[in-house]
Amino acid sequence: MTGARTGTDPGTYDPRDPGLLTFHDRTAAFRDGSDTPVKYLERCLAVITAREPVVKAFTTADLDAALAAAEAAAARHRAGHPASPVDGLPIAVKDIFETREAAAGWGSAHLGAQAGRRDAAIVDALRRGGSVLIGKTALPELGFGPPAATTNPWDAGRTPGGSSSGSAAAVAARMVPAAIGTQGKGSLTRPASLCGIYGFKPGHGTIHRGGDGGSQATNTHIGVLAGGLEDAWVIAKYLSDAAGPHPGHAALDGPAQPPEPAKPKTLVRLEAAGWERTGDAAKAAYEAQLAAFGTTGIDIVPARDHGEWAALEGELAAAADALSVIADYESRWPLLMLLDRDRDEATGIFDPLTHERGRARADVAPAAYQEALAYRQGYRARLAALAAEGVFAVTPAATGAAPLGLASTGSAVYQWASSLAGNPVISLPFMAVDGLPFGLQLQGFVGGEAALTAAARWLDAAFRAGEI
Amino acid sequence: MTGARTGTDPGTYDPRDPGLLTFHDRTAAFRDGSDTPVKYLERCLAVITAREPVVKAFTTADLDAALAAAEAAAARHRAGHPASPVDGLPIAVKDIFETREAAAGWGSAHLGAQAGRRDAAIVDALRRGGSVLIGKTALPELGFGPPAATTNPWDAGRTPGGSSSGSAAAVAARMVPAAIGTQGKGSLTRPASLCGIYGFKPGHGTIHRGGDGGSQATNTHIGVLAGGLEDAWVIAKYLSDAAGPHPGHAALDGPAQPPEPAKPKTLVRLEAAGWERTGDAAKAAYEAQLAAFGTTGIDIVPARDHGEWAALEGELAAAADALSVIADYESRWPLLMLLDRDRDEATGIFDPLTHERGRARADVAPAAYQEALAYRQGYRARLAALAAEGVFAVTPAATGAAPLGLASTGSAVYQWASSLAGNPVISLPFMAVDGLPFGLQLQGFVGGEAALTAAARWLDAAFRAGEI
Repeated sequence: MTGARTGTDPGTYDPRDPGLLTFHDRTAAFRDGSDTPVKYLERCLAVITAREPVVKAFTTADLDAALAAAEAAAARHRAGHPASPVDGLPIAVKDIFETREAAAGWGSAHLGAQAGRRDAAIVDALRRGGSVLIGKTALPELGFGPPAATTNPWDAGRTPGGSSSGSAAAVAARMVPAAIGTQGKGSLTRPASLCGIYGFKPGHGTIHRGGDGGSQATNTHIGVLAGGLEDAWVIAKYLSDAAGPHPGHAALDGPAQPPEPAKPKTLVRLEAAGWERTGDAAKAAYEAQLAAFGTTGIDIVPARDHGEWAALEGELAAAADALSVIADYESRWPLLMLLDRDRDEATGIFDPLTHERGRARADVAPAAYQEALAYRQGYRARLAALAAEGVFAVTPAATGAAPLGLASTGSAVYQWASSLAGNPVISLPFMAVDGLPFGLQLQGFVGGEAALTAAARWLDAAFRAGEI
Repeated sequence: MTGARTGTDPGTYDPRDPGLLTFHDRTAAFRDGSDTPVKYLERCLAVITAREPVVKAFTTADLDAALAAAEAAAARHRAGHPASPVDGLPIAVKDIFETREAAAGWGSAHLGAQAGRRDAAIVDALRRGGSVLIGKTALPELGFGPPAATTNPWDAGRTPGGSSSGSAAAVAARMVPAAIGTQGKGSLTRPASLCGIYGFKPGHGTIHRGGDGGSQATNTHIGVLAGGLEDAWVIAKYLSDAAGPHPGHAALDGPAQPPEPAKPKTLVRLEAAGWERTGDAAKAAYEAQLAAFGTTGIDIVPARDHGEWAALEGELAAAADALSVIADYESRWPLLMLLDRDRDEATGIFDPLTHERGRARADVAPAAYQEALAYRQGYRARLAALAAEGVFAVTPAATGAAPLGLASTGSAVYQWASSLAGNPVISLPFMAVDGLPFGLQLQGFVGGEAALTAAARWLDAAFRAGEI
């Protein structure tokens, strides 16, 4: 674990020394007593105290309960019997998840103020595994309304990205080693990129979504935002095993501990619509990073020279359209119903902008939805057919550094394709633009999370060693 | 509409004169003022008052709200502008659905006593369409624990079947013309058979399940229990359009009004494991009924003479096993989690039998679940390949009349195959055994609900005319 910077001045982002918190490497220290889950938590709480007034990552926090959980974890570790690989892990979860304490807030103080009935499937699994739930993290109202008040830990005048805004910011500010986020269209690896942390979105359905405020959206992925790839893997794998996959889906395939690093042979370079929107400084940083990869003998192959990849790249607009149609239609219940009731009853719970965007979402015709589902099915089949090639796709993880202001959470253009495909992605915080973080995104295939993680770990080790 | 029998003595079941309530045929009377939704509701309330003390169909009821809804519906009908085909329809919903008033009870007074947050997708649709929600109906605790206190309207010493116990009993007792139920393994057409009413389970996913207490079970179907096929169709179709299909699925295909009757050419007679369990009197009634069908020129073909049907029939044990594995594994969250918490906290919310059955359910290994999912996928594909033949499958809808006592809700052996397949089924209350109802079940194909309804309507009309 690199020491946490507890000051309120975040300094300049240095991708070679991000100073993020990690947890998996503490187990030995917890056993021999040189560190304890209580001390680890106390370090986190010190950072939260110092930085939360500006970062505003959390919507709820229960520090007394967290301390009690850490004490119980400390006892288990001392006895040499941790309850799970995540025993004692301080963690935050995006506030679309319900807990026994509070309903799913979905970025609405009104919804979040309702009493909780039960733990979401992942929250239940985390608690059973001994994790230390610190609180819930902010997102835009209903996921698509006005952004959260959360600021980018590297520049309070900039967005942290969204919609997993608070989860990404909490990790980037070193308040926690990891946080749970979700992605429908672009909500995990985009904020990971803008905040300078690791993001891991396993394949669609690998983690149970029960308790996410009743949303039945079929494109939602659960993922992990973390200070390192090892924690990201261990947490995702634990959740897939302990909470189970989402009903009807396969679990995350791979070992409980992180897959060993394995050098990727070929990276297929996708550009598509995102490249035009990417700033010059970001393009230069990305080109330099890929060139560095190339010096190790990794083949960087443009998608346009690579058969079916070229066709898929050319279809990004259609893919984005299908993704939007699905997301919009599937928000009819419960989100648009809540907005309808709000208007009818003139209670004014939700922001006018949320209403405006909700009305736009309500326009999707049922036939368009069915067409989008069919398109997605075909798109997934075509991508799955490429899995046997043993390659990974590479893109920037955002169009540049975090935009100024909090009114927009940035462009998710580089997330659309893998969101529709349901493919696993990992974002690596390897680049900087103007002293701010800028990430690179690797895309693997459904069922190939372990291979993707192995490739990402190899790149990460080479990067940390200064070789690339 | 046949006049409701309001006495507490149900008499003997006469399938030729079931006296069930119907609604779709009231629209003209509502417009010309010879009947009104308020009068209709008042007739229902009179029956509820008389019979509910013995039948115990409801877990909650809000009669003031129902009256207000009926008055609003009456005004719309008088003005010639009903809000939907279900405007003014008195209806009850199984208490796995949440409403703004109360959480989903799932057969537990503790859960049902929690405040509601929002309407389930189907409840929202019913309210928008002007339906008169009378209340929620009973089911076994958590769906698999001790049966509800509901009694069979034809004999208070017998089960109404389950798990849609209260919904079926309310319709059979002529308290309401229709009620919403759900089926995972056998919970719609089994109680329809035992209670002597019509049951319609459209294909899997055709109706949005959002708000069913958080259950993410992938085999759950929403269906309609009703006094006639016309109402069953109109309500199911309205729900599929207004609430939408469940995310990721196709909507119910067909007209808003009931498909015209169409004589079925061939009925494939499935027997499988159910036949051995069926009583002699029930077998005789069923043989006589099929013989009567045959006199009209309908081909009754044993599955064993019919290629792939024979193979599928021979696999019923495997199908039942896959169905159980899926249902058990998918109850881990939230149902088994609730039981876990109950045990941990010694609050004693749930019955010991529910705990015992919950523990048995928790034994499913993740690998067995994945195998069952794969088996289901193959099973569905094989059945789908038979759809083009234009036939329907026929079975009894239960192994006989309602068993004595309330400790068991009867055998669902005749529901397993179509539950796993996700195929639409309709049960027809055509037979009697010892003065008690005994139904017949037709199975169609995914996407073929309109054809199935047309065939069932043809049989129903011929039956009502005394021709079969």
